[in-house]
Amino acid sequence: MTHPDETLASLGESAVLRRIFPRLPDAASALLGPGDDAAVVAAPDGRFVVTTDTLVHGPDFRMAWSSPYQLGWKAAASNLADVAAMGARPTALVVALVAPTATGVHWLEGLADGLREGCAALAPGCGVVGGDLSVSEQLTIAVTAFGDLEGRPPVLRSGARAGDVVAVCGELGLAARGLELLFARGVDAAGAPDAVAAASLRPAFDRELDAQLAPSPPIGAGVRAALGGATAMMDVSDGLALDGRRLAEASGVVLDLSSEAVGSPLALTGGEDHALLATFPADAALPSGFSPIGRVLVGTPSLHVDGRPFDPRGGWDPYADWDGGVG
Amino acid sequence: MTHPDETLASLGESAVLRRIFPRLPDAASALLGPGDDAAVVAAPDGRFVVTTDTLVHGPDFRMAWSSPYQLGWKAAASNLADVAAMGARPTALVVALVAPTATGVHWLEGLADGLREGCAALAPGCGVVGGDLSVSEQLTIAVTAFGDLEGRPPVLRSGARAGDVVAVCGELGLAARGLELLFARGVDAAGAPDAVAAASLRPAFDRELDAQLAPSPPIGAGVRAALGGATAMMDVSDGLALDGRRLAEASGVVLDLSSEAVGSPLALTGGEDHALLATFPADAALPSGFSPIGRVLVGTPSLHVDGRPFDPRGGWDPYADWDGGVG
Repeated sequence: MTHPDETLASLGESAVLRRIFPRLPDAASALLGPGDDAAVVAAPDGRFVVTTDTLVHGPDFRMAWSSPYQLGWKAAASNLADVAAMGARPTALVVALVAPTATGVHWLEGLADGLREGCAALAPGCGVVGGDLSVSEQLTIAVTAFGDLEGRPPVLRSGARAGDVVAVCGELGLAARGLELLFARGVDAAGAPDAVAAASLRPAFDRELDAQLAPSPPIGAGVRAALGGATAMMDVSDGLALDGRRLAEASGVVLDLSSEAVGSPLALTGGEDHALLATFPADAALPSGFSPIGRVLVGTPSLHVDGRPFDPRGGWDPYADWDGGVG
Repeated sequence: MTHPDETLASLGESAVLRRIFPRLPDAASALLGPGDDAAVVAAPDGRFVVTTDTLVHGPDFRMAWSSPYQLGWKAAASNLADVAAMGARPTALVVALVAPTATGVHWLEGLADGLREGCAALAPGCGVVGGDLSVSEQLTIAVTAFGDLEGRPPVLRSGARAGDVVAVCGELGLAARGLELLFARGVDAAGAPDAVAAASLRPAFDRELDAQLAPSPPIGAGVRAALGGATAMMDVSDGLALDGRRLAEASGVVLDLSSEAVGSPLALTGGEDHALLATFPADAALPSGFSPIGRVLVGTPSLHVDGRPFDPRGGWDPYADWDGGVG
């Protein structure tokens, strides 16, 4: 059982780690798990995919809105999505956690539970093979994720060709709508993030809040896209328009999206979707879960909507949009 | 050329990354480097070693004492040492940097230079294959490092056997002496870390300061130890006595060290040595660079010095010792 007054400071690193480790997910690929100077992970085809992404208290999450479970889930999910976007199957994570000494052990256990359940739901067999626990005044969760290409070439951003179909798998705009709702109605009278106000948004806005706080990107769709002949793919994390422009620039093509197929304006510009944006040859059958939203055209690399250039400003820029507020 | 008033906030993430990437070291093992959703790294024997470690402003470094170049170097070195301690050859790093928006681009370039030169000096061929740049009020550098076991089994902490020789490669106590000097004489009249005061310690204490601020662990000795038959090995980062006890406990043996062979008391208890502690069969010739400092005995797992139990308290505990001061 846990005691609410147990903290990182009162228990010390070793005791805290002993409490957290049993809650972390095992990785089927772990040849040697946590506990030594380093872990050893299987890379059956002689390569591994690696990506790293960080969640920082303030710019990336607020304590009043996110439970530790949701944070662990999101830290796993956002990294798994980058692995999936290469066409790889996620195999393992390492987690570098920086937390204030006053952080409750119960809170850390919740984070571990979210990492475990997020992996189990989104990428079964993927687990945590190592980590680091440091102290600081600002909570930061840096996850590095690994994947197995299973003998296939990686699906890059640069492979889109004129004539390809542009397709997407996952929800667009829902996470941004969740954040809008939290900023508009999940706050107290002074505008500060407030847990009670945020809770009042449920169950009416469960889908929007879950997409923002504990997203479920279509991880398995990454491998399906690779097997289905995707010519290019990327994780949509800064908004479809901004990320679509990046794919267009990397490939040297125009991505022309259909506003009708995309849906709402927020689907174009909202951030943190963690959907998969991919291109496929025109004659390919789209893998299950992917919907067509446009075409790849010849032209000066850029993003078009309904045949006209679209300025993707409005996508999430963690630098421009960050206000330093913490709640 | 760089301008002193360019910051993360004024340039934005993309422009900053374009400035930093060319300074980062290439990894010979990179099949796909930075720029896509994830990197792809070679793992020729079908496995990879992975470890992660974080440097946090305040507990782990002070701006008045460390240049960005030294920080980059140390972030690389401390992670490379964990890879080496498995008997592996370091192949690649990913770097998750969290920095205040006011951080100068010149500062970030210095960090990249230190990462590059640290890799070049300590583990040629190892390079940076990916990273993440986030904003926060507190500077944090989380590095994840990879290594190649080249077909060998990893050298664990748990393999020491009664009769083995205990040996060490690297400098013991020097980094702790450097930190003592900085706290005693690298401060202003009020006791705050001070760059001018710290500079006055050079050149007299170059070795001590370099061991603390930009350490050069014997990375290549990890592979030599593995090839030389090491039965157990670990990176000494929290002090020889504390880490030696961990190795003793993992192996179920007594490590009996010779105080004469170890040297000063600080060599037993000082932290951040990043030396390699290893055990070898009694009849093995020690690999070059390793010096014998004790024997492995049967008994209740513990650390002894000159045949008597030694309490390793006094080793660096980042939780107990952290005062939250930042300079």
